[in-house]
Amino acid sequence: MNTLNDVNALSRMLGQHLTESKTTITTAESCTGGAISKAITDISGCSAYFDGGVVTYSEQSKQRFLSVSADTLIQYGVVSEAVAKEMAEGACLAFSTTYAISVTGFAGPGGGTTEKPVGTVCFGFAHAAGETLTYQCHFHGSRDAIRQQAVHFALLKALETFFKIKLDTV
Amino acid sequence: MNTLNDVNALSRMLGQHLTESKTTITTAESCTGGAISKAITDISGCSAYFDGGVVTYSEQSKQRFLSVSADTLIQYGVVSEAVAKEMAEGACLAFSTTYAISVTGFAGPGGGTTEKPVGTVCFGFAHAAGETLTYQCHFHGSRDAIRQQAVHFALLKALETFFKIKLDTV
Repeated sequence: MNTLNDVNALSRMLGQHLTESKTTITTAESCTGGAISKAITDISGCSAYFDGGVVTYSEQSKQRFLSVSADTLIQYGVVSEAVAKEMAEGACLAFSTTYAISVTGFAGPGGGTTEKPVGTVCFGFAHAAGETLTYQCHFHGSRDAIRQQAVHFALLKALETFFKIKLDTV
Repeated sequence: MNTLNDVNALSRMLGQHLTESKTTITTAESCTGGAISKAITDISGCSAYFDGGVVTYSEQSKQRFLSVSADTLIQYGVVSEAVAKEMAEGACLAFSTTYAISVTGFAGPGGGTTEKPVGTVCFGFAHAAGETLTYQCHFHGSRDAIRQQAVHFALLKALETFFKIKLDTV
């Protein structure tokens, strides 16, 4: 199921729920580099719920555009649930949306640490009126495969977190 | 030649030239929705020249994140070379990069005007130390096809504009 077509189906489903609930979403992407916002904007009519998103590939841009704190980056490292949380909350505020999805990870082939090897990806799901949920995953495969799995997970968990829709596709 | 693999080859070539010249690039995307930054970050090692980019899908986000002026939006319309110019220059400043690529267009199936039908896409290529070049294209086909052609054109013209590399792939 973890195919590009599946990502398109998830994005379409997310769009339907956002449209019906008259809510909005934004993205703050690091290792996925824009692939989640691309998936969201693959769906025509997405302008009803998507104003835009940001790709913050460096620590500096995470601080500048999403107000991720230097302390959090130093204490937890750039690939951490703590940074993912601040990224999602920063994006939600910056774009004034109902929801935000954030991703920060080591897609490889370079990067990664002993504790957090290549394939480690952290996610944040922020709700302007609620708490932020975070996850840490470990994906396997090539850079492309890791990024594709990260996009898939992000959309799947957005449906689950924001709209209580649990799909058996992983 | 206008295939995804070709986009990957163009992105790799652009990355090589940016790395060799120790210059940096950013993206300001509307209708491509993150597909250009995705293509740039498909290449491992891109962190040497790519700090991030922004997807500004609405007029509001173009104003907020890229300082596109309300007057320009009203006078020329959101899909115009004038707006593409301000988007690229705004991104160059916001991310403090050497270069910026911007895209704004009607990918369809909805949208478009009599004067600027679906498939009309405007591009800006800003250089922090030089002038900004802009183009208006008209692509054909589905929403996906129009977006893919826009990504292809953006990378091709970035190579030509910033590095004087002319490829015979269109």
